[in-house]
Amino acid sequence: MTAPAVDAATTVAVCQVALAVGHPEENLARGLAAVERAAARGARVVVLPELLRSGYVFDSPAEARSLAEPLDGPTTTALTGVARRHGLVVAAGLAERADDGTLRNSAVLVDPTGLRTVYRKVHLWDRESEFFVPGDQPPQVVETDLGRLALVICYDLEFPEWMRLVGLAGADLVCAPTNWPGPRRGGGERPVEVVQVQAGAAANRMFVAACDRTGPERGVEWVAGSAVVGPDGYPLAEATADGSEQVVVANCRLGQARDKRGSARNHVHADRRPELYGPLVG
Amino acid sequence: MTAPAVDAATTVAVCQVALAVGHPEENLARGLAAVERAAARGARVVVLPELLRSGYVFDSPAEARSLAEPLDGPTTTALTGVARRHGLVVAAGLAERADDGTLRNSAVLVDPTGLRTVYRKVHLWDRESEFFVPGDQPPQVVETDLGRLALVICYDLEFPEWMRLVGLAGADLVCAPTNWPGPRRGGGERPVEVVQVQAGAAANRMFVAACDRTGPERGVEWVAGSAVVGPDGYPLAEATADGSEQVVVANCRLGQARDKRGSARNHVHADRRPELYGPLVG
Repeated sequence: MTAPAVDAATTVAVCQVALAVGHPEENLARGLAAVERAAARGARVVVLPELLRSGYVFDSPAEARSLAEPLDGPTTTALTGVARRHGLVVAAGLAERADDGTLRNSAVLVDPTGLRTVYRKVHLWDRESEFFVPGDQPPQVVETDLGRLALVICYDLEFPEWMRLVGLAGADLVCAPTNWPGPRRGGGERPVEVVQVQAGAAANRMFVAACDRTGPERGVEWVAGSAVVGPDGYPLAEATADGSEQVVVANCRLGQARDKRGSARNHVHADRRPELYGPLVG
Repeated sequence: MTAPAVDAATTVAVCQVALAVGHPEENLARGLAAVERAAARGARVVVLPELLRSGYVFDSPAEARSLAEPLDGPTTTALTGVARRHGLVVAAGLAERADDGTLRNSAVLVDPTGLRTVYRKVHLWDRESEFFVPGDQPPQVVETDLGRLALVICYDLEFPEWMRLVGLAGADLVCAPTNWPGPRRGGGERPVEVVQVQAGAAANRMFVAACDRTGPERGVEWVAGSAVVGPDGYPLAEATADGSEQVVVANCRLGQARDKRGSARNHVHADRRPELYGPLVG
């Protein structure tokens, strides 16, 4: 008998690429080239940044609209192509324009069969609400050959409720396209954005692959803190502190996320006291 | 006019002391001596470990019972005394024996007026359920001269729901007596227990003072990761990596916790989507 893929080591890559708003073809090409590099290093799951093709720092709603695309547009098409060529699962963010013209900050997960799920960012950061309508659905957990995968996007990671929801829904690996604005933190201190990824992974004993971007854009710098974190909450691989473009890879036994025991007698989900958590919902 | 104390700098201390199960008088004396050292360094809020007087690694329920004490017993009495002498707020854990004989893993917050609140640990770790009945009430937020304080205990910190509840209830500073079992983590990596404290602080833009212990006990080592974390999620002060007894102090403008803005347009609590968090409660 062959062991299920979830018990084997899976190479997970996050592709921290430099993007530039208003240059959609170049951005997409840069993302695809990074996926090729990740595949050459053995990656089976590859995560790209939030708003990969459009870029992030829009001048106006009109500009955001001009850079948005339908769900079955160029990003999903190109990612499905590279997923097919190399037998990958690929996640990336896109500015999604619905048939009715609504824009959303979305992410797609594709595999060789095509689009597996779309997630629309629920927690919008800063000016994003000028451009996007927030999502109103939790991430779906998608059963793949490699394990159970789910999407969240950037600021979602700062809401532990959202990470818990995904953990309770059974995700082995959360793929998180991000654009973390802000200067890189010096002094050897890990950015708090990564700390929150670590805590979300540990609290739910699951893997999280957060892919940040780089490339200054209209005066905005980026944390450039891409990381793959394991269920113990420690980074298995993370971007170097120089803020450069890089493909970060980690070998993950995604099946480890099926074991929620924090000690011989503890279970990070069963030990919850949901009957006491009433004030969290409304 | 005098500015409210919450806008002034308050020195917060965590006293990482060595304890030994079965030596209650020595443990309490050691804790009190550390509070004196903290007061000499200007501390106004002082946090001591979980189960300060009893120690932690009980051999049996009978031993736990023999080391437990009533809520108005020696720990609360002694802490109130030192709080009066120096004008302090002091938090510490104790093995609480109720009138009906029930044991709970509790923590008290005292000030010069006496006991301000008791909190009974809701999330029990490992063998604790052999000795203690879990609490079933959220921590109270206590208005003090220095700001709004609340208690949680150790494993509670790993449940982001619980930290959120305390944050939503308006705590400026969460005082967290802990006993974090496990070897200290080498390689300059901050212990995941501290990472979870950082994330809880950042997600709620509040201060958290976590006081761990040291002193090997019946084969159990301790993380010895005491830290005071600010609302940005970064440690303001933390124990050195050698695992020694130490008083760690940080100057905290507790009023900063009243500003929940994560950016000009973001608010870590108002940006929540509680209408989508239904699966968290039951």
